[in-house]
Amino acid sequence: MELWYNEQFEDQSLALGSRTSFRVDKVLYSGQSKYQKLDILRTTDFGNLMLLDNIIMLTEKNEFAYHEMLAHVPINAHPNPKRVLIIGGGDGGTAREVLKNEAVEECVMVEIDELVVEKAKEFFPKTAISFKNPKLDLKIADGIKYMKDHQNYFDVILIDSTDPFGPAEGLFEKEFYQDVYNALKEDGIAAAQAESPYYYPKIQKKYFSMLKELFPKVTSYMAMIPFYPSGAWSFSFASKKYSPFEKYQTEAINNLEKETEYFNSQIFKACFALPNFAKKNLENYS
Amino acid sequence: MELWYNEQFEDQSLALGSRTSFRVDKVLYSGQSKYQKLDILRTTDFGNLMLLDNIIMLTEKNEFAYHEMLAHVPINAHPNPKRVLIIGGGDGGTAREVLKNEAVEECVMVEIDELVVEKAKEFFPKTAISFKNPKLDLKIADGIKYMKDHQNYFDVILIDSTDPFGPAEGLFEKEFYQDVYNALKEDGIAAAQAESPYYYPKIQKKYFSMLKELFPKVTSYMAMIPFYPSGAWSFSFASKKYSPFEKYQTEAINNLEKETEYFNSQIFKACFALPNFAKKNLENYS
Repeated sequence: MELWYNEQFEDQSLALGSRTSFRVDKVLYSGQSKYQKLDILRTTDFGNLMLLDNIIMLTEKNEFAYHEMLAHVPINAHPNPKRVLIIGGGDGGTAREVLKNEAVEECVMVEIDELVVEKAKEFFPKTAISFKNPKLDLKIADGIKYMKDHQNYFDVILIDSTDPFGPAEGLFEKEFYQDVYNALKEDGIAAAQAESPYYYPKIQKKYFSMLKELFPKVTSYMAMIPFYPSGAWSFSFASKKYSPFEKYQTEAINNLEKETEYFNSQIFKACFALPNFAKKNLENYS
Repeated sequence: MELWYNEQFEDQSLALGSRTSFRVDKVLYSGQSKYQKLDILRTTDFGNLMLLDNIIMLTEKNEFAYHEMLAHVPINAHPNPKRVLIIGGGDGGTAREVLKNEAVEECVMVEIDELVVEKAKEFFPKTAISFKNPKLDLKIADGIKYMKDHQNYFDVILIDSTDPFGPAEGLFEKEFYQDVYNALKEDGIAAAQAESPYYYPKIQKKYFSMLKELFPKVTSYMAMIPFYPSGAWSFSFASKKYSPFEKYQTEAINNLEKETEYFNSQIFKACFALPNFAKKNLENYS
């Protein structure tokens, strides 16, 4: 008998007539926190898979693509990325990648849901390895509140959130990004997962339009992530001062790319080249 | 009631524990030619969808990504792409894109299966529009045999095939590519769909290794194509003389990108930047 998990989006804004499925060996965990439903499945070909509210967050086999691209692109666009803040990212994968960058001295991670962290430690050792790193300051707290309480402190802020519905809804709002802007130093850079340009053009247009009202330099970069809808995924790049290629340091990237499976110096530049249809989601706003 | 088509790979080399599904309104056509099974479905969100032997070939909504990237990248890497040959491509989409290039004077398309062409005319008017173009010379014939009969004639050859099983198996073999080499002029370029680097590393290693035995310059480029497995798709670039960026003409690309939904001058360069894991599929051969 074969069992398959078919991804399902309850929110109709995300529920398109296309879906991704994974063949499953075993259900390893099913539970409910104060914030969301968490399920962990063992797949036949892609290692363990995490679901939050039935939506696929990562597979062990290919999580590198998402975590590397969220972390390394903005960090390497900054000339001096000493202090990095991650909002969300409870599996630990983004923190693991942040801490590969030698320039990073301090990494704070603010995850609202302790259950995700606990179960990542149990079922996702490759991403949860970052929780053992002494440079990581993990806080179980509300990222929206944390952001309000910090000003002019971080060089890079990464928002590693779920979709803009449920617990992460506020992480796509202007009020939150005003606080992100304030929590960054005068030359800081923020980056966030920003959905699929193929499947969610309306969400993208609204979101990038909002970012442009706050940050002087806003663009998007992309990566190929097979466990997300369409496989073509966007990240936002919102910068107070630097353009993506203004300050990158070749040596830092060359050192880093020895430890990565996706990111490298060519990808760092190429990921900002957007197909025409994706460019339009940034241009035709409001 | 909701109906979904779940893609199925009968060949076990392609049958991974991940699959893509589309929600279906109606089955528009089901038939069998001498070569393969053909089904055409109307999806709820992506226009009509074509299946050959149960494998998804294209959706109307997003076919542009595949057809533009197969055609425009090699054509624009060639300084004088007058004569272009397409093997396969029965829906007409690749020919449509080839003929957008002003430098192309002659486009021959050799499709083995007349049924695909006939049904594309009926159900895929956006791709089959190329069959009305007087510059297109459509031949219903065996591409393998056609290639043997032509020497030193084409500037660019595009292989728009199904997967390397069933009718297209021979189109991934060394004997065929020896004939492709011979059918190209002394500075010709061949390109082909080359599967997913995430899901089919073994197929890629074998295939690129074979190309390197024949062509002096072999590389790969990628595009994000949501209806193919993993969404991350590769194309081979096999050249007798020119590297990808040696001879491109800025003006030609600038004119072209007014008519494209995916391809543009930044994508032309960026698509050759491969993630580390995909680079390995080209390097560790034999």
